[in-house]
Amino acid sequence: MQFGSDNQAGASQRVLDAIAVANAGHVHSYGNDPWTERAVESLRATFEFDLEAFFVSTGTAANSLSLACLVEPWEIILCHDHSHVLNDESTAPEFFSNGARLIGISGRNGKLEPKHLTEYFRLAGTEYPHNSRATALSLTQASENGLVYTPAEISALCSAAHDRNLKVHMDGARFANAVAAMKCAPADLSWRSGVDVLCLGATKNGALSAEVVLCFDKTIAEQFAHRRKRSGHLLSKSRFAGAQMHAWLKDDHWLELARHANKCAAALSEQLSKLPGVHITWPVVANEVFALLPKSMVDRLRAAGAEFYEWPLTGLPPNVNIASSETYVRLVTSFLTTEKEIAEFSAVARRT
Amino acid sequence: MQFGSDNQAGASQRVLDAIAVANAGHVHSYGNDPWTERAVESLRATFEFDLEAFFVSTGTAANSLSLACLVEPWEIILCHDHSHVLNDESTAPEFFSNGARLIGISGRNGKLEPKHLTEYFRLAGTEYPHNSRATALSLTQASENGLVYTPAEISALCSAAHDRNLKVHMDGARFANAVAAMKCAPADLSWRSGVDVLCLGATKNGALSAEVVLCFDKTIAEQFAHRRKRSGHLLSKSRFAGAQMHAWLKDDHWLELARHANKCAAALSEQLSKLPGVHITWPVVANEVFALLPKSMVDRLRAAGAEFYEWPLTGLPPNVNIASSETYVRLVTSFLTTEKEIAEFSAVARRT
Amino acid sequence: MQFGSDNQAGASQRVLDAIAVANAGHVHSYGNDPWTERAVESLRATFEFDLEAFFVSTGTAANSLSLACLVEPWEIILCHDHSHVLNDESTAPEFFSNGARLIGISGRNGKLEPKHLTEYFRLAGTEYPHNSRATALSLTQASENGLVYTPAEISALCSAAHDRNLKVHMDGARFANAVAAMKCAPADLSWRSGVDVLCLGATKNGALSAEVVLCFDKTIAEQFAHRRKRSGHLLSKSRFAGAQMHAWLKDDHWLELARHANKCAAALSEQLSKLPGVHITWPVVANEVFALLPKSMVDRLRAAGAEFYEWPLTGLPPNVNIASSETYVRLVTSFLTTEKEIAEFSAVARRT
Amino acid sequence: MQFGSDNQAGASQRVLDAIAVANAGHVHSYGNDPWTERAVESLRATFEFDLEAFFVSTGTAANSLSLACLVEPWEIILCHDHSHVLNDESTAPEFFSNGARLIGISGRNGKLEPKHLTEYFRLAGTEYPHNSRATALSLTQASENGLVYTPAEISALCSAAHDRNLKVHMDGARFANAVAAMKCAPADLSWRSGVDVLCLGATKNGALSAEVVLCFDKTIAEQFAHRRKRSGHLLSKSRFAGAQMHAWLKDDHWLELARHANKCAAALSEQLSKLPGVHITWPVVANEVFALLPKSMVDRLRAAGAEFYEWPLTGLPPNVNIASSETYVRLVTSFLTTEKEIAEFSAVARRT
Repeated sequence: MQFGSDNQAGASQRVLDAIAVANAGHVHSYGNDPWTERAVESLRATFEFDLEAFFVSTGTAANSLSLACLVEPWEIILCHDHSHVLNDESTAPEFFSNGARLIGISGRNGKLEPKHLTEYFRLAGTEYPHNSRATALSLTQASENGLVYTPAEISALCSAAHDRNLKVHMDGARFANAVAAMKCAPADLSWRSGVDVLCLGATKNGALSAEVVLCFDKTIAEQFAHRRKRSGHLLSKSRFAGAQMHAWLKDDHWLELARHANKCAAALSEQLSKLPGVHITWPVVANEVFALLPKSMVDRLRAAGAEFYEWPLTGLPPNVNIASSETYVRLVTSFLTTEKEIAEFSAVARRT
Repeated sequence: MQFGSDNQAGASQRVLDAIAVANAGHVHSYGNDPWTERAVESLRATFEFDLEAFFVSTGTAANSLSLACLVEPWEIILCHDHSHVLNDESTAPEFFSNGARLIGISGRNGKLEPKHLTEYFRLAGTEYPHNSRATALSLTQASENGLVYTPAEISALCSAAHDRNLKVHMDGARFANAVAAMKCAPADLSWRSGVDVLCLGATKNGALSAEVVLCFDKTIAEQFAHRRKRSGHLLSKSRFAGAQMHAWLKDDHWLELARHANKCAAALSEQLSKLPGVHITWPVVANEVFALLPKSMVDRLRAAGAEFYEWPLTGLPPNVNIASSETYVRLVTSFLTTEKEIAEFSAVARRT
Repeated sequence: MQFGSDNQAGASQRVLDAIAVANAGHVHSYGNDPWTERAVESLRATFEFDLEAFFVSTGTAANSLSLACLVEPWEIILCHDHSHVLNDESTAPEFFSNGARLIGISGRNGKLEPKHLTEYFRLAGTEYPHNSRATALSLTQASENGLVYTPAEISALCSAAHDRNLKVHMDGARFANAVAAMKCAPADLSWRSGVDVLCLGATKNGALSAEVVLCFDKTIAEQFAHRRKRSGHLLSKSRFAGAQMHAWLKDDHWLELARHANKCAAALSEQLSKLPGVHITWPVVANEVFALLPKSMVDRLRAAGAEFYEWPLTGLPPNVNIASSETYVRLVTSFLTTEKEIAEFSAVARRT
Repeated sequence: MQFGSDNQAGASQRVLDAIAVANAGHVHSYGNDPWTERAVESLRATFEFDLEAFFVSTGTAANSLSLACLVEPWEIILCHDHSHVLNDESTAPEFFSNGARLIGISGRNGKLEPKHLTEYFRLAGTEYPHNSRATALSLTQASENGLVYTPAEISALCSAAHDRNLKVHMDGARFANAVAAMKCAPADLSWRSGVDVLCLGATKNGALSAEVVLCFDKTIAEQFAHRRKRSGHLLSKSRFAGAQMHAWLKDDHWLELARHANKCAAALSEQLSKLPGVHITWPVVANEVFALLPKSMVDRLRAAGAEFYEWPLTGLPPNVNIASSETYVRLVTSFLTTEKEIAEFSAVARRT
C-alpha cells in the first residue's frame, strides 16, 4: 500500500536493462556519446521539433536552471501559488537566477488562468527600476493538484504571457501523466501551445534518475550549457542518462507506464469517494488523489502499513475548509502500483 | 504645493552647515575620523545603548544589508505585504542575501500583528530542506500606510518573532516621524521593544544623504563591515555622513523637523477630510496622507501645479474599493512644507 | 587504446549489479532508504570515523558545495594553480559560495607545500574589509599532475592551514588511486592528517555516478543539507547512489579497481619513457601519465585510433619548456584498461 | 604633511558651494532633477560624446556595477595584478557580477600591454563550458602605480581586447590626474581610444562624494539602471551628486585641481630622489609617489606627524627587492597639498 510518492518506486525493467547495455566499453564523457545522441534524437522525434536537450540529475535543477535562463536577477517569475518551484524546492529558483523573485498568483484556484495574469498586472507597480517586472510564467503539468492543463488552456496562458513579454516554462515532472491523460501529442502540450522550455521528468515515472530540459527557444539553449556546468549538473557519464531516456521513450514505454499510474489513481479515487467522511478535493486526472479523510481512517490505514503523506493545507481549494476531525492527504500512484494495493487500501479505509 | 515625497526636499540648514564645518583639513577615510566617531556617540546617547553603527548612502542599502545579516540564503524574511522592501526596492533583498526569499503576510491590514505570524506558521511547510524556514521579520516604522507601531505593538511582534527564532529588522526611513508621533524614547521603539537591527534614515527628514544601520545585536555587526565593503557602500569620505548625522541628532533637531512634517500632514488631512468625495483611507499619524480623491479634483490640483503621486491599489485597506471616478493618491509632508502650501492645496481641492 | 579519461569507462559489474538489486520495491526517497544508510555505514567503517556523508551527482557539485561551507562570500580559497576546481569547473566555486574567490598559489610546483602558504600570507594584504582574507585551502588527491600527497605532507599542510584559521578541503576525484598508491588507511589521507571535508569520487573509478562529500567537521554538515537541496543536488532516488557506493567499498572493491588503474599507468609510463623524444613530465604515482611527445608520434597514435587529450601548457612543471615539435599530452588509465591496450599503444608509439 | 590618500582631503570650495546652491527648494528625486541633468550635459560636452551617465556613491560601486554589465557570471575579467578592483575592493566584483572571476595578468609590470593579453590567451583553456572565457578587460587610469596610459597605449590595448571580443572597462578613480598629465582631451583617454565604460571619480579630487559611470556603449546602459537600484546605489537626492559633478567640471575646475596634485607629486618625488637610501620605484606621472625608504627615515617622518601608508610588496616592480632595512611606502598628493607640506616632509626626511 505504497502511495507516498512516485519517486519511491524504482525503475522499470526496460530502463534498467538499457543501463546495463550502455555500460559496455568506452565512450566520450559529458554528453558526446552515442547514447546521449540517440536520446536527443528520440526526444526530437517524440516532440516533432528540432529542440535542444540538456540532461540534469534532478527536477529542481531542471526547473531552476531553465527559469534562470528566462529572467534577469531583477525580474519576477509568476507561478501558481501551489507550485512545487515555489513551495518545495527551497530557494533554488533564487539561487540559480541570482536572486530573481517568484510570485504565486492563482488565489488557490486549481489551475492558472489568463485572468490571473491580468489581475496581477492590473495591480503590479510599473515604476522601474523601483518595482520589479514579471518576465516569466511557470506552469506545472500535471499540476500540483493532479489536474492537467488542456492544449487550449496552455495556448491561452502562453498567449497572455507572450503578449506581455513573458516567456513560459513548464515543470513537467509528471508530464508523461498529463500526456497520457490528454491522449494528445506531446507537442500539443508544449511548444505547439506556446511553451518555451519544458522540464521533462522521467524519474517519477520509471527512470532511476533522468530529467531533461527541452529548449524550444534556441536563445535559451545558448546559455544553458554554461549554467549547467557551473552548477555542477553536467554529468560526466552522460551515457547512462541518455540510455534511460532513450529506453523510456522507445515504443511509448513512458506513456504505457503513465497510463497505468493514472488508471490506478482513478480506481483509488473511485473507491474512496464512496466512503462516508471522505472528501476528494480535486478532480483526479493524472496520478494523484487529494482527499480530506477522517483522522480515525488515517490512523487505521497507517496502522495497516499504508504509506502516504499528510499534505499542506495551503493545497486546499479556496472554498474548502478542514474540520478538526480530518486530515488532508495526498495519495500518489505509480507504474508500480498494483490493483491489489488499491483493493487492500480501500478495504482498510472502509472498515470501521 | 509639494507633496510628492519627503525626499524631494533638500537638507535643513543646520545639516548643511555641518558639512561645511566638517570639510576643513585632512581626516582619515572610511569611518576613522572624528565626525563619524562623534555621530556614533550621539547615536549611542540618543538610543541609550552601546550599539554598533554603520553609515550607508541609501535606505535600500541599509535595509538589504541588514536583512542579509539575519538570514541564510535558503531562508525566508517575513514582511508586511505593503512594505517598501518588498515592493519598491527592486530585488535588492534577494541580491544582498544571496537569494533568500521575502514573503508579505498581512493580508493588507494596516499593521502587522502577532496573529499574522501565527497564521503564517500554521500553514508553512516544515519539511526541511524542501521547504524554506522563516528566520527574520521586517517591520516598517512609520509604516508604508503612514501608521505608527506603538512600543506595545512592537514588543508583542518581537516576542512572537523571537519565540520562533526570527530576528527583527526595522526599516526606519521615517523613524523620526514615528518617534515624534509617539512622543516616546527612541529606545522604546527599537531595542527596548525587541528590535535587533534598525535602519535609521535621515535623508527623508532633512539630511542630504545619511542612512545608518544600528545593530543592537553584536553578532550582526561582525559581518556587516564585510558586507558593506563588498557591496560598495563603505564611503571613503565618511566624515560627511558623520557630520550630517551628528547635526541632525543634536538638540533634538531631527524630532523638531519630524514634528513639523507630522503636524503638516495632520492639518492637510483635516482640511481634505471635510471635502465631499474625499476618503482618507488610513489614519494620519506620521507625515503621510493616503486618500481616494475624485478624478476631477486630482486634475484640478495637478493643473494648479500640485505635486503628489498616484498610489498602487495594492496599498488600499482590504475593505476599501476604488470607484472608476476616483484616484488613489499619497500626499507626503516634510520639514519644508509650509502652512501656505497646505492652505493653497486645500483651496484648489475645494473649488468646484 | 582508450586513455582519454577514466570517466570514459563505464561501471564495474559489481556496481552495476548492485543497482539492479536495489531496484526492488518501494523505499523512501531523498536519502531515507536502507541503501543510503548502508552506504553511510560503509563509509564510516572505511574511514574509521563518525562522519556525515552527502551524496551528489558530480564532482563539481561535491567540490563547490563543500568549499561553499568553508568560506564567507567575502573570503578567499587557496588552491594549487593546476587544480581542477580553479581551471575546469567553470565558475562553480564562485557560484556556490555566492562570490568567494579562488587563488592558485603553487607557482606550478607539483604539489602544494606549507611554504606556499607562508609566501602567500607574507604578501597578502590585511586591511580588512578592503582586502579579502583566505580562510580555506583546497588540496587535490591524487593531484592534477598524477602525484599523491603522503600523510606527512597532508599533515604539514593542514597544520599550516589550521594555524592560520583555514579549513581544509580535499578534492578526492581520484582518492581511491591515492589510497591504492600509498597503501595506507583512508583515514591517514584524510581526517587523521587534518582534512576537514573530503569529496570522495567513485565515478572515475567504476561507478555510474556516485560522488559523496564526507564531513569530518559537524559544523559543515549542518548547512550542507540546505545547500545541496537548493542547488538541485538532492537526489530523489538516493537508493541508487547508496547502492553504488556500498558495492564499491565492499571487500575493498574500490581499491582493487584503483590498483589496477595505477598499475596500468606505471606500465604505460615505463614503456613510453624508453622511447626517444618522449619526456615524462611528472612522476607517475596514480593513474595518469603526462608527457611531451613528438608531434609525429602523436599523429601516428591518433591515426591508429588511440584516444588521449592534449593538455594545457599551464600544467607543465615550472622548469620545463615545450618545443614546437612537441605536444603535451595526458594519458589516463582506468579499471577497464587492458595490458593489450598498453602494448598496442607502445608499439604504435615506438614505430617510426 | 598629509600624504595618506587623496580621499583624506575634503571638498574644494567650489564643489561645496554648489551643494548649498542646489539645496534650495523641491526637486524630483532619483535623478529626475535639473542638477543631475545639468551634470549629464556637462559630461557629454566634456567627453564630446552622447554618453549615458549613472551616479553612484563609491568607486567600488562604480567599478563593480560596470564590470557586472560586461560579463556573464561564468566569464572572466582580466585586469592588472596590482589593480584596485582585484586587491582592494573585497570580493565586490564577484558579488555584483554574480560570481564572475577576476584574473590579474601583468606579471607585475607597470602597465598592461597587448602582449599580456596574448600570453593569457596562449595558455588559457578553451574547453567550454569547463573552462571560463575572458570577456572583459579592466584598466586603471591613472594606474595603481601612479603611471598613466597614453592614448596610443589604450588604443592598442582596446584593439587587442576587442579583437578577442572583450569589452573594456576603465577605473578612473584618478582619471582627472591622468588627463592633467597627458594634456589631451578626456575623449582621447576613453571612448576615442576604445574604452566601453569609464568610471569617473571626483571624490579623490575635490568632491565630497561623486562617482559617475559613463557608458559609451548603450547596451551597457540598458541594464545599468536595474543593477544600480537593486544594489542600493540609486541616490534619492541625486541633485547633490549632480551639483558636485557640474561644479567640478565647470571651467576645467577638475583639471586645475588635478594639475595641482600632480605638480605636488612631482616636486615631492624630486626632493626625495636626491636623498641617499631613497629609491623611487615607479616613474611619477600623476599624483602618487612610491618609494623604498630607509626604516629610520620612515620612523622619523612618522614621529614628525607625517601621514602616509606602508604599501603591499606585491606592488613592487618585478625586478625590485626590498631590503630588511627598508619600508615600501606610498605618498599621495591632492588638491589640498601645499608646498609647505612638501618642504617640511623633505626636510624631515633629509635630517639624519
